[in-house]
Amino acid sequence: MSLKVSVLGSNSAIPTLKRHPSAQVVWADQMPYLIDCGEGTQLQMRRYGIKFQRIRQIFISHLHGDHYFGLLGLLTSMSLLGREKELTVFGTKGLVDIVETNFRHSKTRLNYPCHFVELEEGQTGQIYEDERLKVECFPLRHRIPTFGFVFREKPRDPHFLKEKGEEFDVPVEAIQDIKAGSDFTTKDGRSIPNSELVSSKIEPEAFAYCSDTNFFPEIIPHIKGVNLLYHEATFMEDMKKRAKETFHSTAKQAAEIALQANVGKLIIGHFSTRYDDLEPLLLEVKEVFPNADLALEGEIYSTGV
Amino acid sequence: MSLKVSVLGSNSAIPTLKRHPSAQVVWADQMPYLIDCGEGTQLQMRRYGIKFQRIRQIFISHLHGDHYFGLLGLLTSMSLLGREKELTVFGTKGLVDIVETNFRHSKTRLNYPCHFVELEEGQTGQIYEDERLKVECFPLRHRIPTFGFVFREKPRDPHFLKEKGEEFDVPVEAIQDIKAGSDFTTKDGRSIPNSELVSSKIEPEAFAYCSDTNFFPEIIPHIKGVNLLYHEATFMEDMKKRAKETFHSTAKQAAEIALQANVGKLIIGHFSTRYDDLEPLLLEVKEVFPNADLALEGEIYSTGV
Repeated sequence: MSLKVSVLGSNSAIPTLKRHPSAQVVWADQMPYLIDCGEGTQLQMRRYGIKFQRIRQIFISHLHGDHYFGLLGLLTSMSLLGREKELTVFGTKGLVDIVETNFRHSKTRLNYPCHFVELEEGQTGQIYEDERLKVECFPLRHRIPTFGFVFREKPRDPHFLKEKGEEFDVPVEAIQDIKAGSDFTTKDGRSIPNSELVSSKIEPEAFAYCSDTNFFPEIIPHIKGVNLLYHEATFMEDMKKRAKETFHSTAKQAAEIALQANVGKLIIGHFSTRYDDLEPLLLEVKEVFPNADLALEGEIYSTGV
Repeated sequence: MSLKVSVLGSNSAIPTLKRHPSAQVVWADQMPYLIDCGEGTQLQMRRYGIKFQRIRQIFISHLHGDHYFGLLGLLTSMSLLGREKELTVFGTKGLVDIVETNFRHSKTRLNYPCHFVELEEGQTGQIYEDERLKVECFPLRHRIPTFGFVFREKPRDPHFLKEKGEEFDVPVEAIQDIKAGSDFTTKDGRSIPNSELVSSKIEPEAFAYCSDTNFFPEIIPHIKGVNLLYHEATFMEDMKKRAKETFHSTAKQAAEIALQANVGKLIIGHFSTRYDDLEPLLLEVKEVFPNADLALEGEIYSTGV
């Protein structure tokens, strides 16, 4: 088991032809969850073959345009294309006001149930759960209320190994107990230990998304030990002062967070438009935290090794 | 003299990878004026090499998303890129509410003076004027208040022909009178008629933009005789009923408007996403009004022949 992350855009602030603003799709068991929705996100999903009608939850980190200016267009397109399935959008206070104001003037009525969940300032903990995963939020430190999110896979029962069932002639009614941990006794009285009958335990994995934020070690307890961390790295360390003033982080600071949080792998993004070549940012990260990569649009990253 | 029109998008409703939502740049004497601003318009301008900081006026026909969802991103990018020049945005009632609501929640403050002019429902006549052109508005018939716009070049004094100035030894102080229509008398007493000294009269040209609207002959007095008309043609004639219900027009209806208004040339757009191949729409138009073309993104159309 692992979560996959499709990066649809990782530029900061200004969309360019090469780099789109923030949006990522988290895949759990082939089910897509959208995080952030900068301008052009619906087209980026088309470009990378992601069927956006399959999305049922959207998580908006904060209400700066490069993280949500594509949301109204996506909600509208979903409706125009005949969506009936419900959708839930998580975001900060103001989200409902923005959506209602726009839709009131355009007389837009979505053809599907669209629920909005506004997070309270400073809210921490689980905000969503289904059979695949849980999502938790925690506050980042930015100019306006901003949240990070952790996507945690749920633990799964080990698989019952079909070929072992045949080998030891296991009746169907015994399988549930075996999956729950029991040993099995064959007709001729042999005891087969549980570990021989089921797959090895599937460890749930986790992905954390942190954008946009100052260097903010207070987030560490929330993201501790996740397999994959996305952390913003708008600037390089030589612009640390500017990063602080604009409530952003440097590449080195992202790496320090990853190191202190003991995550498996780090991907960085939200790059300032001033950087044509992103390799220097990655080099800066790797000096502190070697298992790192650039979050590049069109690429897919995994919580697994 | 002529006006040029760069089409940046001419799809209806849903952005696709091949066709973007509505946006056009009108060029008068190399000065750009933006009409409508669907999602992705700022990227379309980058794609086609249009420097969006040079725009000083934006005209939004109505508040359906496919005509304005790119506006907030454009206004924000202009600010982030250091704009200081003022900008004026014309639109319908609600525009200011939408912009203020979004910017209040994002705590956005534009670094340049941005003025908004909300047109009154049913407003008709001149709304803007500068040294190059005048812009008039008139109501279309759509689900929400929607305006068409006419861009009219201003009449210009004929050019004084420099080579004639040298030939007849015209002193600088006489040029103003000649440009205003006077004849000239040479030192040796010869009278040179004005027509020999100036270029032939430059006829001002006009472009009209009509999107989105039902078939609505009431617009004809406003667009009568323009050199170039953009009229929406969301559907083909076999979907006339659907066009009427959704307050749109068919290709044939666009052609009938062009014919009745005696315009020079017609370009059609706002195509329904159902039409992969647009040629049948053009054929339908040409049966009624032969001097017609598709408004295709990336193409430039001219009021001149």
